[in-house]
Amino acid sequence: MSFRTEYDTMGAVQVPADKYWGAQTERSRNNFKIGPEASMPKEIIDAFAYLKKAAAYTNTDLGVLTAEKRDLIAQVCDEILTGALDSEFPLVIWQTGSGTQSNMNVNEVVANRSHVLQGNTLGEGKTFIHPNDDVNKSQSSNDTYPTAMHIAAYKILMDVTIPGIEKLRDTLQAKSEAFKSVVKIGRTHLMDATPLTLGQEFSGYVSQLNHGLKALRNTLDHLSELALGGTAVGTGINTPKGYDVKVAQYIAEFTGLPFITAENKFEALAAHDAIVESHGALKQIAVSLMKIANDIRMLASGPRSGIGEIHIPDNEPGSSIMPGKVNPTQNEAVTMVAAQVMGNDVAISIGGSNGHYELNVFKPVMAANFLQSARLIGDACVSFNDHCAVGIEPNYEGIKKHLENSLMLVTALNPHIGYENAAKIAKTALKEGTSLREAAIGLGLLTSEQFDQWVRPEDMIGSLPPSPLKGEQ
Amino acid sequence: MSFRTEYDTMGAVQVPADKYWGAQTERSRNNFKIGPEASMPKEIIDAFAYLKKAAAYTNTDLGVLTAEKRDLIAQVCDEILTGALDSEFPLVIWQTGSGTQSNMNVNEVVANRSHVLQGNTLGEGKTFIHPNDDVNKSQSSNDTYPTAMHIAAYKILMDVTIPGIEKLRDTLQAKSEAFKSVVKIGRTHLMDATPLTLGQEFSGYVSQLNHGLKALRNTLDHLSELALGGTAVGTGINTPKGYDVKVAQYIAEFTGLPFITAENKFEALAAHDAIVESHGALKQIAVSLMKIANDIRMLASGPRSGIGEIHIPDNEPGSSIMPGKVNPTQNEAVTMVAAQVMGNDVAISIGGSNGHYELNVFKPVMAANFLQSARLIGDACVSFNDHCAVGIEPNYEGIKKHLENSLMLVTALNPHIGYENAAKIAKTALKEGTSLREAAIGLGLLTSEQFDQWVRPEDMIGSLPPSPLKGEQ
Amino acid sequence: MSFRTEYDTMGAVQVPADKYWGAQTERSRNNFKIGPEASMPKEIIDAFAYLKKAAAYTNTDLGVLTAEKRDLIAQVCDEILTGALDSEFPLVIWQTGSGTQSNMNVNEVVANRSHVLQGNTLGEGKTFIHPNDDVNKSQSSNDTYPTAMHIAAYKILMDVTIPGIEKLRDTLQAKSEAFKSVVKIGRTHLMDATPLTLGQEFSGYVSQLNHGLKALRNTLDHLSELALGGTAVGTGINTPKGYDVKVAQYIAEFTGLPFITAENKFEALAAHDAIVESHGALKQIAVSLMKIANDIRMLASGPRSGIGEIHIPDNEPGSSIMPGKVNPTQNEAVTMVAAQVMGNDVAISIGGSNGHYELNVFKPVMAANFLQSARLIGDACVSFNDHCAVGIEPNYEGIKKHLENSLMLVTALNPHIGYENAAKIAKTALKEGTSLREAAIGLGLLTSEQFDQWVRPEDMIGSLPPSPLKGEQ
Amino acid sequence: MSFRTEYDTMGAVQVPADKYWGAQTERSRNNFKIGPEASMPKEIIDAFAYLKKAAAYTNTDLGVLTAEKRDLIAQVCDEILTGALDSEFPLVIWQTGSGTQSNMNVNEVVANRSHVLQGNTLGEGKTFIHPNDDVNKSQSSNDTYPTAMHIAAYKILMDVTIPGIEKLRDTLQAKSEAFKSVVKIGRTHLMDATPLTLGQEFSGYVSQLNHGLKALRNTLDHLSELALGGTAVGTGINTPKGYDVKVAQYIAEFTGLPFITAENKFEALAAHDAIVESHGALKQIAVSLMKIANDIRMLASGPRSGIGEIHIPDNEPGSSIMPGKVNPTQNEAVTMVAAQVMGNDVAISIGGSNGHYELNVFKPVMAANFLQSARLIGDACVSFNDHCAVGIEPNYEGIKKHLENSLMLVTALNPHIGYENAAKIAKTALKEGTSLREAAIGLGLLTSEQFDQWVRPEDMIGSLPPSPLKGEQ
Repeated sequence: MSFRTEYDTMGAVQVPADKYWGAQTERSRNNFKIGPEASMPKEIIDAFAYLKKAAAYTNTDLGVLTAEKRDLIAQVCDEILTGALDSEFPLVIWQTGSGTQSNMNVNEVVANRSHVLQGNTLGEGKTFIHPNDDVNKSQSSNDTYPTAMHIAAYKILMDVTIPGIEKLRDTLQAKSEAFKSVVKIGRTHLMDATPLTLGQEFSGYVSQLNHGLKALRNTLDHLSELALGGTAVGTGINTPKGYDVKVAQYIAEFTGLPFITAENKFEALAAHDAIVESHGALKQIAVSLMKIANDIRMLASGPRSGIGEIHIPDNEPGSSIMPGKVNPTQNEAVTMVAAQVMGNDVAISIGGSNGHYELNVFKPVMAANFLQSARLIGDACVSFNDHCAVGIEPNYEGIKKHLENSLMLVTALNPHIGYENAAKIAKTALKEGTSLREAAIGLGLLTSEQFDQWVRPEDMIGSLPPSPLKGEQ
Repeated sequence: MSFRTEYDTMGAVQVPADKYWGAQTERSRNNFKIGPEASMPKEIIDAFAYLKKAAAYTNTDLGVLTAEKRDLIAQVCDEILTGALDSEFPLVIWQTGSGTQSNMNVNEVVANRSHVLQGNTLGEGKTFIHPNDDVNKSQSSNDTYPTAMHIAAYKILMDVTIPGIEKLRDTLQAKSEAFKSVVKIGRTHLMDATPLTLGQEFSGYVSQLNHGLKALRNTLDHLSELALGGTAVGTGINTPKGYDVKVAQYIAEFTGLPFITAENKFEALAAHDAIVESHGALKQIAVSLMKIANDIRMLASGPRSGIGEIHIPDNEPGSSIMPGKVNPTQNEAVTMVAAQVMGNDVAISIGGSNGHYELNVFKPVMAANFLQSARLIGDACVSFNDHCAVGIEPNYEGIKKHLENSLMLVTALNPHIGYENAAKIAKTALKEGTSLREAAIGLGLLTSEQFDQWVRPEDMIGSLPPSPLKGEQ
Repeated sequence: MSFRTEYDTMGAVQVPADKYWGAQTERSRNNFKIGPEASMPKEIIDAFAYLKKAAAYTNTDLGVLTAEKRDLIAQVCDEILTGALDSEFPLVIWQTGSGTQSNMNVNEVVANRSHVLQGNTLGEGKTFIHPNDDVNKSQSSNDTYPTAMHIAAYKILMDVTIPGIEKLRDTLQAKSEAFKSVVKIGRTHLMDATPLTLGQEFSGYVSQLNHGLKALRNTLDHLSELALGGTAVGTGINTPKGYDVKVAQYIAEFTGLPFITAENKFEALAAHDAIVESHGALKQIAVSLMKIANDIRMLASGPRSGIGEIHIPDNEPGSSIMPGKVNPTQNEAVTMVAAQVMGNDVAISIGGSNGHYELNVFKPVMAANFLQSARLIGDACVSFNDHCAVGIEPNYEGIKKHLENSLMLVTALNPHIGYENAAKIAKTALKEGTSLREAAIGLGLLTSEQFDQWVRPEDMIGSLPPSPLKGEQ
Repeated sequence: MSFRTEYDTMGAVQVPADKYWGAQTERSRNNFKIGPEASMPKEIIDAFAYLKKAAAYTNTDLGVLTAEKRDLIAQVCDEILTGALDSEFPLVIWQTGSGTQSNMNVNEVVANRSHVLQGNTLGEGKTFIHPNDDVNKSQSSNDTYPTAMHIAAYKILMDVTIPGIEKLRDTLQAKSEAFKSVVKIGRTHLMDATPLTLGQEFSGYVSQLNHGLKALRNTLDHLSELALGGTAVGTGINTPKGYDVKVAQYIAEFTGLPFITAENKFEALAAHDAIVESHGALKQIAVSLMKIANDIRMLASGPRSGIGEIHIPDNEPGSSIMPGKVNPTQNEAVTMVAAQVMGNDVAISIGGSNGHYELNVFKPVMAANFLQSARLIGDACVSFNDHCAVGIEPNYEGIKKHLENSLMLVTALNPHIGYENAAKIAKTALKEGTSLREAAIGLGLLTSEQFDQWVRPEDMIGSLPPSPLKGEQ
């Protein structure tokens, strides 16, 4: 491999000759060999591209950067967003906690790439664009990295997470409606209980996801606040007047998302409570998904010796040793994702709690965990939707068998004969292995006609609730 | 100890003769000797009192309970709320996960106490009020316990948590304004950075708490939804028509809080995402408090060999061996509370994720952790406020010394001489132990007059942001 | 309430006239109104009694305390251990993070109580025993509190936790042996799989608990190291030569546990990795208990529409609305405890990671969480053992039905006809609703005789493993 | 892209023509588009290569596989271990929770690659080696995947984690010895306390890491137990007699690690407590590293307005806006790793607690989190060691200034004049801004000679403890 020499304020560094990055990126690459290379999420790099372009536009508008420099910077930023320069960002999550070298990585790539775009040879001559004085103008790592965190977080929620959850929610809602007349046994404490419809059961899942979506959307306001303009410590040193508001407007324009400048830049650098807050909602959704996926696999268990009240699609041979076995694999992926998100929430909370003075230096670990959770939830919902939820069907035979056997239909007798007499009937039936009717009549507590009139599963199910959170979806 | 005999559907049980509880409470007391006695939170018992009274009123309104029974039930519920019957609730958190026996504990106490109120002797004769058929009418543990969780949670947030946080927030806001002209060194990565005012530093704390309060309030909607009316599995079996809406109205009236009936009762029994959601906000606030309390104790560290930029009140002798030592003990209590709340969040999330079918049976552990967190945060904010925050004063001497020594004032030169030249000045000053001015002039990079004009800490601090989230407080 | 005036180095404090505590305890009581009163665990107070007595003996042996003072101090310590002075320790967990005021609480109670034991009146005259100069001699809060943590932690593990787990382990081991011939269907992914015996299933639980016990015992070495002798910062300032070794010997003698002095006192004050380590093992056991309790309640589910392969004892009426319902309530208590312990582990880890310089100031929160987990696990194991595990019996009817229906018996054909042909048989049987035998013969893949010879559940179960970790129990 | 058709028991699948994987891998690739491709850890694939080879050898030894097949299988396994086939393993973590398709991925690659090695064309003709009947012979995903987890986990601990921690421990030990005479102020509660040596301070870190290493090694026994031989549910169906013991021996031989067959295979499939246990030790080490890295960055803070008692190496320009700034970046990477590991611990615990019946289906998420933690800790320790710890030097000037100013030297007077008089001196000095000597003499509590004799920092430091855990390293 051939190298060229690059310089920063600490001196000379040998950099791979064909790479656009410069001295500071190379220092970080060598100093932080922790985990796999290039683990800094691509979403963060893209977010930097948006913000560097926005900063260049703002700087030009405010008279501190020439239009020529602005256009060159913007051209490289656009190129970054195409993915063409992906191999120019080799740094890891586990670097400085401010992400400074990832900021410099972008600054250096923009400077050197623009040099080449101007017709020069990489590494020969001084670049027209200076990484610090131009690309980073009116900025600090301390305000750019948290800005990139919010851009990347907001964007992935809108692009991946929320659409994924909504897709699954819509399917479950459709199933809830389709199953609204399928009366089945209820279970509490895993034990037989009074009946409900399969549609009602699924409506609970829909309601969970709708509440989760609402909770997640509640966090977007805080995420929409951008640190940019705070520079080094939040005071905005070395920024022109009006910069913070305007740069947020450009970012909003370029991303199509409603970003605004943070009212308080000191919080925005020193704490990342918006990330904690928003990931809290992701964690809540993970909790919901664990319940939903667990229920569905238990309901589908069998095929002959389980609960077996629904069918889920057969997607792949389930066992390398047991021929013909099929497993609820999508549910397993979802519940594993849920466990991961619940763990990530702790990592993010610990990171968030450990800021000191004017800066939190757990930024990259918080960003990486957030982006992983957001993507996993979105992807897992789509996968679960497409390969499991859409294909769920009632197993009418299993449902019927369980419903008819249930002793808890006795509950309908409470208002007629009182809890204690009803309990006698259920206990007698269980002990003697008879039906409720037989036990009831045998005990002389009611007549056969009364039994038929009072113990009707289809009368025990109330009515399916209206679509949850209607008008909010 | 003398006993009387009580009965439930399983048979006879010996109960302490002077206690109002009955057979089922006694069974649970004997079957669950796990941890200290009577650990079921008092707030849950109180919430049951509200809801039992509301149910009685609703049942009477809807024609399924006599007014005489209603009034007796309501009388005992009011008595419970006075605390007079506190010793009648001996059960623990670690019982059935539906809290059934705590529901029955209330039912039994109401029945037996009303028996005595009617002039009878405890344990003699049949009670006029039946624990199941009257006190528990139109109810199940499965909908009462989660209703009690929401009542208790909402109430403690309004009574203890939010006022506590607001009190601290107001003090920090006042300090932020009082300190708005105190220019001091900033620190990022724990290292000397560009200046800001002490007021700006504190404004970040205010902004954190305001965002936390907003996040917490965002969760109240979900908490306001009550499960009551869902009974056994969410269908509302054995409830009269219109019961769910009306009983929520009564609870709202009795508590003064805006409760409504949950649109989806299946979620409300089988999942407790509202608790997960709301505790997520408490956890976010814990994360904020950890940062704030950490900063303040670091800023106050010393008295002679620490950072020493603020004074905090001396509250107690700090050491049993080091005479005259005083410690930031309130900060320590706050950060311990933060650690506890962060742990509780995991317990709650695990509990929340493990519902099965129509019921989540981690109700008591979720309730207990939520209530602990809510109280600890509220109490700790008040304690920290009263015994620390209100007494914070700048240590002008320490602030001045640190500010004057700072090399990072050099940052102000970037726009004039560029980042690289500025870096040379800072490095020279550090290496040679001189002031920035000496280094700058020695290097011939600017004149003494330019230095004076450009390097002015008071010009580096921007302006104090407006009161955070104004209009939202 | 009447008061007397007490003094400390900060001045006068009004103290309830009838209480033995002094000025510093009262300051803490007033300054930390966070959560319920007197939450500092009793186990910690007892541990202080052991160590104060041991310190007095050591001080006398080493010539720095008179035998008269020693005997007075020891007398009060013994009294504390009887519980007679329980109401004298009003402080909360959420105080200074070093537990200084709880140390002083003990010092003050010992001084004032000894004053009364000498025939004096509380609050009149100077005490013969000085709280700091005598009771606290050769000590600091910084080494006494962590010493108390280790004493209390080790003791509760030996007294409560380990015996509780062992009791449950022994019962499960006995059940495993009793059920060793009960062939039943296995389940993987919740789906029907090849058979095993119920005894084998239970042997897995035994093995988990045995590994958990081993893991827990592995942590005792670290817990056995005592900080005492490190005093203020670990150097042992103001201790006589030989003090640390000797005082640990006395503590070992008084408690009957193998305590030694910590080789490195700096770790012992500034970090509580021993608590983190040992609680890690408690968390592992919680993880195991969650699995075991979940399995048992799923196996017992029904009574008619669940899995229903075992019976567990009926302990209490399970529902306030569904008559005759019985629930796996002990399992629910155990799994709630597991969730709590998993949350506590996070609180402890966060506390443990946040020590600064020479002292960790999350001591009380770490101690309280540890002691709660240790007690809950011990108590829950006993409760689950006595009220559930001992009564578990196979439900032979359910077991037989599930086993006979299972399609996964086909796995036994792999070595004879290959995985792909075996899969054909299983899929055909499932699709056509026939038995494996019918499908196999229908497909012409084997004869009826071959089927009978090869597909025998009782040949598919290997042999019950030897008692797990034999020789280690 | 061109495709070929492959078959499994569910039918035909189009597979990329140039890839060795087969139908089941392709199904999983298409069904689980969750997160980045090929996220299943490479260490797991390698572990499969070891175990497939070992199984082939064992099968041949026991007469159920020809030597020709064994040698072909072994040849491909060896090839996998070289990394030459890395692009043949495209599956993700978020697949079935048993890792079945990753097992099949290996089976299919071995079958198809051996086909090519025999001179055939990929996709043409039937392979001599069958993925299920040969490569997977005497195996199930249910025992291979957990076996791979233990192999991968044990191996990375020995290869990466433990050597990394030991390297850092050795450096800190050397520093502790080098700094053994550097007397400095101690700090408790972040406040000035009695002195110790810098070497003593560092000895605490060494002791933490030594205890952590011991705790980690304690977990290796459990990790050494292999599930292989349990096959589908733990009974070992379809394995030849003696297989489990022998295959573990081969794995031990091939890996050079002391693996044995698990005594209880039911636990080994249904629970992964060994992973929970071992990661608990990694989490403990993360807790220790958080403390150590925090201390070191606080001690190094400044350069002019912080604590400034040590120097750490300058590795890169610290700020994109503040010229000349240098930050404790290695410490930040370490503390971010610590936060991640603490989060991973929760994900692993949740996964571990959610096994059902005969199988835990959170295997891939547990494996991935474990391997990430193990690598990050190992790498971060090396990085921190090489780029920070080895270059730590005392800042004698800062140390001297802080020591001389300290009021807590007064503690040495307790044995001479009592705690209360000593406190008076300290408080007077603080209030009047004088030295301790001046205050002491001014108060008439001792003479100048006495002060000089009693207040000597170098007498307050005890003696450096012996090398921690000597003989155990």
